[in-house]
Amino acid sequence: MPELRQDPLVGRWIIFATERTRRPHDFLDHHNQIAEPKINPFAEGNEQLTPPEIFAVRPPNSKPNGPGWKVRVVPNKFPVLRIEGTLEKEGDGLYDRMSGIGAHEVVIETPKHDEQLEEQSLEGVANVVESFRVRLVDLFKDSRFRYVLVFKNFGRDAGATLSHPHSQIIATPVTPKVVKEKLAGAQKYYEQKERNIFADILRQELKDSRRVVYQNASFVCFCPYASRFPFELTIMPRRQCPDFHRIDPQEVLQLADVLKVSLLKLRRGLNQPQYNFLIHTASARYPKRDYWMTLEQDYRWHIEITPRLTQIAGFEVGTGFYVNPVLPEDAAQFLKEVEV
Amino acid sequence: MPELRQDPLVGRWIIFATERTRRPHDFLDHHNQIAEPKINPFAEGNEQLTPPEIFAVRPPNSKPNGPGWKVRVVPNKFPVLRIEGTLEKEGDGLYDRMSGIGAHEVVIETPKHDEQLEEQSLEGVANVVESFRVRLVDLFKDSRFRYVLVFKNFGRDAGATLSHPHSQIIATPVTPKVVKEKLAGAQKYYEQKERNIFADILRQELKDSRRVVYQNASFVCFCPYASRFPFELTIMPRRQCPDFHRIDPQEVLQLADVLKVSLLKLRRGLNQPQYNFLIHTASARYPKRDYWMTLEQDYRWHIEITPRLTQIAGFEVGTGFYVNPVLPEDAAQFLKEVEV
Repeated sequence: MPELRQDPLVGRWIIFATERTRRPHDFLDHHNQIAEPKINPFAEGNEQLTPPEIFAVRPPNSKPNGPGWKVRVVPNKFPVLRIEGTLEKEGDGLYDRMSGIGAHEVVIETPKHDEQLEEQSLEGVANVVESFRVRLVDLFKDSRFRYVLVFKNFGRDAGATLSHPHSQIIATPVTPKVVKEKLAGAQKYYEQKERNIFADILRQELKDSRRVVYQNASFVCFCPYASRFPFELTIMPRRQCPDFHRIDPQEVLQLADVLKVSLLKLRRGLNQPQYNFLIHTASARYPKRDYWMTLEQDYRWHIEITPRLTQIAGFEVGTGFYVNPVLPEDAAQFLKEVEV
Repeated sequence: MPELRQDPLVGRWIIFATERTRRPHDFLDHHNQIAEPKINPFAEGNEQLTPPEIFAVRPPNSKPNGPGWKVRVVPNKFPVLRIEGTLEKEGDGLYDRMSGIGAHEVVIETPKHDEQLEEQSLEGVANVVESFRVRLVDLFKDSRFRYVLVFKNFGRDAGATLSHPHSQIIATPVTPKVVKEKLAGAQKYYEQKERNIFADILRQELKDSRRVVYQNASFVCFCPYASRFPFELTIMPRRQCPDFHRIDPQEVLQLADVLKVSLLKLRRGLNQPQYNFLIHTASARYPKRDYWMTLEQDYRWHIEITPRLTQIAGFEVGTGFYVNPVLPEDAAQFLKEVEV
């Protein structure tokens, strides 16, 4: 059974995915590439190689777990957290731990092995975005979960272990530390100024315009002022809403557009770099505490896209203090000029 | 001039090392190995290829910036922060920035290109530790600096750009976010319990013993309860002191011993993995605020060693929520059995 443990000093939770445990000798080879399985379990026609699908975008006449789909969401065969069981919490001397209850799903973005997300049609990307939404609505109904992470690892250095285009969803029984900090930071700003920090950021970025890469009717894509990584991008909705899963149908299409353009600009401008993207959405709202009451006004969901062009040095992980060799104004200028 | 910028939501500071700026096309090749210079500037006899030394361990009869040294500390030729200038702070709309004043030094650990830190004699490692101490005492005298980071990147994935054995020291005008969190966490624990959290952790680890890898008269090396990475190690002093640079001569030798043993166990047990180490010490104490008054009792310096055996996925950087496939009890058991 996986287990969560909390760092007693800084409150960070760690998932120990013991069912994935490799033996120490598995760590001896430091140069392993992505070890592709002989048969691609995510390809059309191989549906029986994954656990049964939870959700799919497929024509009305096609059968679940058969071919014909456009997007498939399936449980991860090697999940870091388990859906079955009750959430047990206990102390361990001065430490705290809880059972590794959660969900870990894979969003197979396309039946085509060699078609990256940004190469899909607008409708294709919209199907992926809509799949995220549907799964989040469902997962947030489970009262054991506090947070749902939607993310994509593209490339081995970015954490991918299979090359068929896919993203992942992890539901967790705790709110991740950085999410808590973002929620608290937004709340504090609102209390001090009676203004939403995301609205203020968006206003300043649009007025300044040097860091804006692309915008459409519903979203703005910009290189954040304090970017941790070269060519880091933030996608921010214009409409105030703390929850990604309350995105409306028009916004699904607009988000597909801004995602496609942003990823294409990275791909064409920077020679298809490895990257991660991450949807930052608000936590679940139960138990209803005062803490969450202001969320509707003060927090806004957003997406972070981080290309992996530099190594992450040890002191950056250990101190949260990043060194970035490229100013966001220069990165934005460069990406703005990339034709897509 | 380098510049520091603060993330307005979570308070994280980023160093923009613009004098190191590479042009976007420099990012097109994603497979660059360590690009060794033709002539090794850190080798004995090439002292004129580095800026003049700030400190060295060398026999009394040998001349500065000539051969004969055992350890040399020199300014980094490509510093991320600049020592010259005054610290200017200014707002930028809702954002905050300051000039990139600081220090960036390289500790050349040995004249021998192929002798890793853990392969040096005990005296050799002690010379490196003593060099860290001497430089920290000096850098903490500069009232522009709030924190001094001592760290080592071994291997390209861990952030190294030269293979000659070296560590680095960066003095910064702000206290890094994670350090602030550790200081605050330790203070809160002390306020609640009138006990030092590091003393409590050490007591529990020694009593439990399953996570202890090695100990000597002054230090204990263990795999922390909520390890972020497989085979992560913490080296904790037995004596309560917030500041690394107040280490006594006996402790310098004992630290050399525990560092050498820990790194040798990683090297022999895990096929010389890439790794980082990081000394976590307290911040500078000026301006004297109440905040710092309890530090003597509540905070303790320590070292984190993090092998790079797994990829750091995007959501781990974005959320502070790590997945670790190896329990610290299993990692410690494995390392305990590695003969050194």
